[in-house]
Amino acid sequence: MANSKYEYVKLFEQPDQLLPNTWVVVRIDGRGFTKFANKYNFEKPNDKRALDLMNAAARQVLIELPDITIAYGVSDEYSFVLHKTCTLFERRASKLVSTVVSTFTAYYIFLWSTYFPETPLTAPLPSFDSRAVCYPSLQNLRDYMSWRQVDCHINNLYNTTFWALIQLGGMSSTEAGEKLSVSLRSNGNGFSKDKNELLYSQFSINYNNEPEIYKKGSVVSRDYELVEPGTHNTASEGESMAELAAQPQSKTQAENDGKRRTKARVVIEHLDIIRDDFWDRRPWLLSNKPGKIPKEP
Amino acid sequence: MANSKYEYVKLFEQPDQLLPNTWVVVRIDGRGFTKFANKYNFEKPNDKRALDLMNAAARQVLIELPDITIAYGVSDEYSFVLHKTCTLFERRASKLVSTVVSTFTAYYIFLWSTYFPETPLTAPLPSFDSRAVCYPSLQNLRDYMSWRQVDCHINNLYNTTFWALIQLGGMSSTEAGEKLSVSLRSNGNGFSKDKNELLYSQFSINYNNEPEIYKKGSVVSRDYELVEPGTHNTASEGESMAELAAQPQSKTQAENDGKRRTKARVVIEHLDIIRDDFWDRRPWLLSNKPGKIPKEP
Amino acid sequence: MANSKYEYVKLFEQPDQLLPNTWVVVRIDGRGFTKFANKYNFEKPNDKRALDLMNAAARQVLIELPDITIAYGVSDEYSFVLHKTCTLFERRASKLVSTVVSTFTAYYIFLWSTYFPETPLTAPLPSFDSRAVCYPSLQNLRDYMSWRQVDCHINNLYNTTFWALIQLGGMSSTEAGEKLSVSLRSNGNGFSKDKNELLYSQFSINYNNEPEIYKKGSVVSRDYELVEPGTHNTASEGESMAELAAQPQSKTQAENDGKRRTKARVVIEHLDIIRDDFWDRRPWLLSNKPGKIPKEP
Amino acid sequence: MANSKYEYVKLFEQPDQLLPNTWVVVRIDGRGFTKFANKYNFEKPNDKRALDLMNAAARQVLIELPDITIAYGVSDEYSFVLHKTCTLFERRASKLVSTVVSTFTAYYIFLWSTYFPETPLTAPLPSFDSRAVCYPSLQNLRDYMSWRQVDCHINNLYNTTFWALIQLGGMSSTEAGEKLSVSLRSNGNGFSKDKNELLYSQFSINYNNEPEIYKKGSVVSRDYELVEPGTHNTASEGESMAELAAQPQSKTQAENDGKRRTKARVVIEHLDIIRDDFWDRRPWLLSNKPGKIPKEP
Repeated sequence: MANSKYEYVKLFEQPDQLLPNTWVVVRIDGRGFTKFANKYNFEKPNDKRALDLMNAAARQVLIELPDITIAYGVSDEYSFVLHKTCTLFERRASKLVSTVVSTFTAYYIFLWSTYFPETPLTAPLPSFDSRAVCYPSLQNLRDYMSWRQVDCHINNLYNTTFWALIQLGGMSSTEAGEKLSVSLRSNGNGFSKDKNELLYSQFSINYNNEPEIYKKGSVVSRDYELVEPGTHNTASEGESMAELAAQPQSKTQAENDGKRRTKARVVIEHLDIIRDDFWDRRPWLLSNKPGKIPKEP
Repeated sequence: MANSKYEYVKLFEQPDQLLPNTWVVVRIDGRGFTKFANKYNFEKPNDKRALDLMNAAARQVLIELPDITIAYGVSDEYSFVLHKTCTLFERRASKLVSTVVSTFTAYYIFLWSTYFPETPLTAPLPSFDSRAVCYPSLQNLRDYMSWRQVDCHINNLYNTTFWALIQLGGMSSTEAGEKLSVSLRSNGNGFSKDKNELLYSQFSINYNNEPEIYKKGSVVSRDYELVEPGTHNTASEGESMAELAAQPQSKTQAENDGKRRTKARVVIEHLDIIRDDFWDRRPWLLSNKPGKIPKEP
Repeated sequence: MANSKYEYVKLFEQPDQLLPNTWVVVRIDGRGFTKFANKYNFEKPNDKRALDLMNAAARQVLIELPDITIAYGVSDEYSFVLHKTCTLFERRASKLVSTVVSTFTAYYIFLWSTYFPETPLTAPLPSFDSRAVCYPSLQNLRDYMSWRQVDCHINNLYNTTFWALIQLGGMSSTEAGEKLSVSLRSNGNGFSKDKNELLYSQFSINYNNEPEIYKKGSVVSRDYELVEPGTHNTASEGESMAELAAQPQSKTQAENDGKRRTKARVVIEHLDIIRDDFWDRRPWLLSNKPGKIPKEP
Repeated sequence: MANSKYEYVKLFEQPDQLLPNTWVVVRIDGRGFTKFANKYNFEKPNDKRALDLMNAAARQVLIELPDITIAYGVSDEYSFVLHKTCTLFERRASKLVSTVVSTFTAYYIFLWSTYFPETPLTAPLPSFDSRAVCYPSLQNLRDYMSWRQVDCHINNLYNTTFWALIQLGGMSSTEAGEKLSVSLRSNGNGFSKDKNELLYSQFSINYNNEPEIYKKGSVVSRDYELVEPGTHNTASEGESMAELAAQPQSKTQAENDGKRRTKARVVIEHLDIIRDDFWDRRPWLLSNKPGKIPKEP
C-alpha cells in the first residue's frame, strides 16, 4: 500500500522564508483579553500578577529559543526579536510564528496557578495570535521597539488617569471617558502633561512615582556585563556591526556562541529602550556575539 | 507625546491572506516529540493517554473555533480543515496558524493532568508548530486527508511490528529495524502483507483486531445525522456543492448557521475517511451548511 | 578569481510559484494609453487599427506560448488564461508575468507599422504592465471572463454614446459627460436601455448594429472543431473535466498534445463568452486536451 | 446591467508589495538568446552591435523611469536598481517587473534596425523575462553588483579563449571545450591566469587590451559631477546615507529632485563597480539626492 498516489498534495505547501539579513520581530497578542481580564477580575489599570505571568512566560520562550536576542512586553502583547543573521527554522514564517506562540502559550497556561493560585483557569482558555515582521535596518528595528514603548506610555498614562477618575473620583466609565476626551480635545499637543496635572491636582498621584513595570513595560534579555558607552554613533556603527555579524561563522564558533548564550541568565527589566544609551551598553544585541557573563556577587 | 514618528514601522507588515475559495488545512506538529515521549515514558507503539489528550485538545479547538469543519489527528500531529468559503480572520495565514496552534497548546497543557495524573509536566514544556496549506479542489482536500490516513496506517503497522519484535521477540531496536528493512527490501510491494503475516505467525497478533484509534487515527467533527448515501458522484457533485456554498449568505442565515454549529456536539471517531462513503454521508462537510442535530436517545 | 564570495546574494531571490491546480490569468494593461491614444490620434470611440494591432500581438503570444489556452482582449488590456494543470516555468509568477508582457510588447512594437503605416512610433514608446491572478474553480474563471466582457459592454455603450453626443450632437466633452451622468442618475437600473434609446432617438444609431469587435471584445484561441453542446451542466462537469486533466500524463501523450496545439490555427473572434454555450462547445478549454483540427475547406 | 455580480473576482488579486526600505534589483534576461544569436549571426565571442542595442534600450528605460538610479548590463541580461526608499508603483513586484521588461523590450525591438540595419527581425521575436529581488543592506546590493561583474569577467575570459581556439586555433567547439576544461582541472585556482597565458602565448592576445565593454560590462546612470573620494568608509557611512534618505521629504523637494533627475544626461560607461572608489565618487547612488549636473564643455 503505497502512499505515493496522494503525496502530490505536499506540493501545495508554499515556501514562506523571510527575507535574509533583516531583523525579524515575532509579536504575540492576547485574543479577547478584555473579556478574559474581566472573567478573572484583573486589577485596573494594571494587574501585577498578570504582567508577571506574561513576563515569566516570555522568559521561558527566550530560554527555549536561544536565537531570540531580546523581547519587549506590554499589556497582553510581547515582541520577540531575532537577529538579522538568524537562520532558525530556515527563517520560515509559519514555523517561527507558531513555535513562539505555542511555547509562550504553554508557559502561560502552565504558570497560571503560580501567579493566580486562587482562581483556577476554566474553558475557554486564554490564547494568543502571532505574526512576523521583517525590519531591514537597525533604525527600523529600534523605531519598532520605540513605537511599542511609546504606546505603553500613552496607554498607561491614559489608563492610570481613567481608572483614578473612576476608583478615586467616583465617576462612571462613561464620564471618565468623556472627561479624558474633552481634555484631549482642548489641548491636543500637551495631552500627556494634561493628564499628569489632573492626576496630581485631583488625586495627589505623581505619575513619575508609578512602578516602572507599568510605565516602561518589560524587557527580557540575557544578562551580560554592560559595556561603557563609547562616543560612537550607534546608528551607523550599529548597522556595521550587524552587517559584520552576517559574515559566515565557523561551526565551532557558532557552537561556542550557543553555549555561552545558554549559560547566561535571562532577566526581566523595566528600562528605557528608546534612548541610544540602552543599545550602546549592549553591543551584543547588534553584533549577535554573546557578551561577558557577569561574576556571581 | 505623539506616536506618529515611529508608527511608520507598521507599514512593514506584509499581507498574507490565503487565496479565496480554497480549502485551508492548518496542520500542527509536536516539536521534538520523540524526546518528549521518552521523558514521560509514553507506551510503545502507541500511548492511549497521549492520543486521548491530543484528541481532547483538538475537540476544544473545534468548540472555540466553529469555522473549523473537521479535524484529523494521528500521532503528534493534527490537521484542521476550514471550508473553502471560510473568511475567518480575513483568511490571514499568520492569524489562522497562530490561533489554532495557541488554542491547541493551551488545552494540551491544561488537560495534561487529566490524562497523565501521575506525571506532572516540567520544563521544557511540549509545544507545536503549525502551517497552513490551501487546496483548490475537493479532490485535492480529500487526497490530503487520504494521505494522512494512509500515513497513519503505514506507520502504525510498522511500529506495531517493530515493537512486537522488541517487546515480545526480545530483539534490540537495531535488530528489529534491520529485520523490517530486510523484509521490506525482499518484498517491496507487499510490505504491508508481509508485516501482517509476521505479526500473526510470530506473535499471534491479528493486526485487524488492533484498536481503531491506532489503525485509523482520529476524526473530530460536529455530530449531525448521517445522510443516506445517494448514487451521486461525490467527486463532481461535491465540487458543485462546495461551489454553491460560495454564494453570499444573508447575515441572518449566517448567524443561524453559526448557532446550529455551536449547538452540535463535537465528537471524536475513528473512521475510514478515504472512501466516498464517509463524504457521501456527511454533505455538510462540502456544503458548509450545518446538518440536522440528532435527537438525544 | 572565484565568484563564490558574492554568490550568496542569490539566496535573496524569493520563490513565487503560484498555487497548483488553479487557473492562472495573466492580464496586461497599456500604460498611460489615454495620452498615447491622443499622441497618435486614435479614432473615437474605437480605433479599429489599434484593436487589430492588440489582437495581432495577442495572437502571436498564443503562438509563441502554446500553454495559453485562450485570451480575451478589450481596449488596451488583454487577459491570457493558463489551464489549472499548466506547469509552464514551474508556475513562477515573475516568469509568467514578464514573459507574456515582453512577448506581447515585442509584437506590438514590431507590428505597429503594419497597422499604422503612416504614423511611425517615436519615444516615449507604448508599454504594458502585467499581473497574474489565480482562480481555484472553473466558475471563478468564467466569472472573471464575464467580468471583463460585461466591462467591455458597459464601457463601449458609454463611449459610443459619449462620442455621438460630441461628434454628432456638437456637445463639448464636459457637456456630454454631464448629460450621461444625469441620465444615469435619473434611471440607475436601466442605464443601458437609456443609452440605447438616446443613441437611437437622437442619432438613429442602432447599438445592436455596431461592430461585434467593439461590443464583445476579442477572443483569441486555437481553431478546433466545435462540439455539439450536450445537455450536460458545464458548471459541474466542467469542474470534473478540469480535475481529471490534473491526472499525470505520459511524456509521449504530453508531446503529442503539444504538437497538435502547435498545428492548430490561432484565430481571433468576437463572441459571447458569458453564456454556457461558448464553453459547452469548446470542451478543450476545460479538459486541456487539444480538439480536432478542422479540415481545410 | 450591473457588473457587480462578477466583480468579486477582483478579490483574488493578491498583494505583492516588496518589503519597504530594501534595495530593489529588477533583472531582465533574454529568453533563448543562444538560438536567437545564431539566427542573426551574432559575432563571437562578443557582438558589439548586440551589446550597443542592449545598452541603448537600457538607457531608454532609465529615461522613462527616473526612479531607477543605476543599471548594469552584461551579455543578454540587465539589472536595474531602485533605491531603498523608492515607492514607485507602491513597490508592487508585478508592476515593477512588468513595466521594466515591457519598456526594455519595446526599445529593443524599436531600435533593432538602428544596430542591425541589414538583418530585419522576423518572428519569433526576441523577448525577456524579469524578476525583482530585495536587498536589505548596501553591502548586499554592492555584493549583488559585484557578483554580476565578476560573472562578466569569468564568462568573457572563457569565451574569448574558447573562440580564439576555434577562430584562430582551428579547433572544433568540442575540442576547445575540452582544452579549457582540462586546463581548468589541472589548475583550479589559477584558472584566470591560465587562460590569460594561453591567449598570449598561442595567439598573442593581451587580454588586458580587450575592449572595456567586454571585460567590464556596461553601467548606465545619470551624469552628475563626480565627488572627490573622501577617506570615509563607504560600507558604514553609505548605509547611514541610505538610511537618512528614508526620511520623509517635502513634496516640493521631491518634485525638485525629480526635475533634476530628468535634466541629467543618462550615460553608458564601462567601469569597475566592485571597488569602493566607484561608490565613493557617486554619493547620489546612496543618498538618492540628485548630484550636480556638469557644465557643458
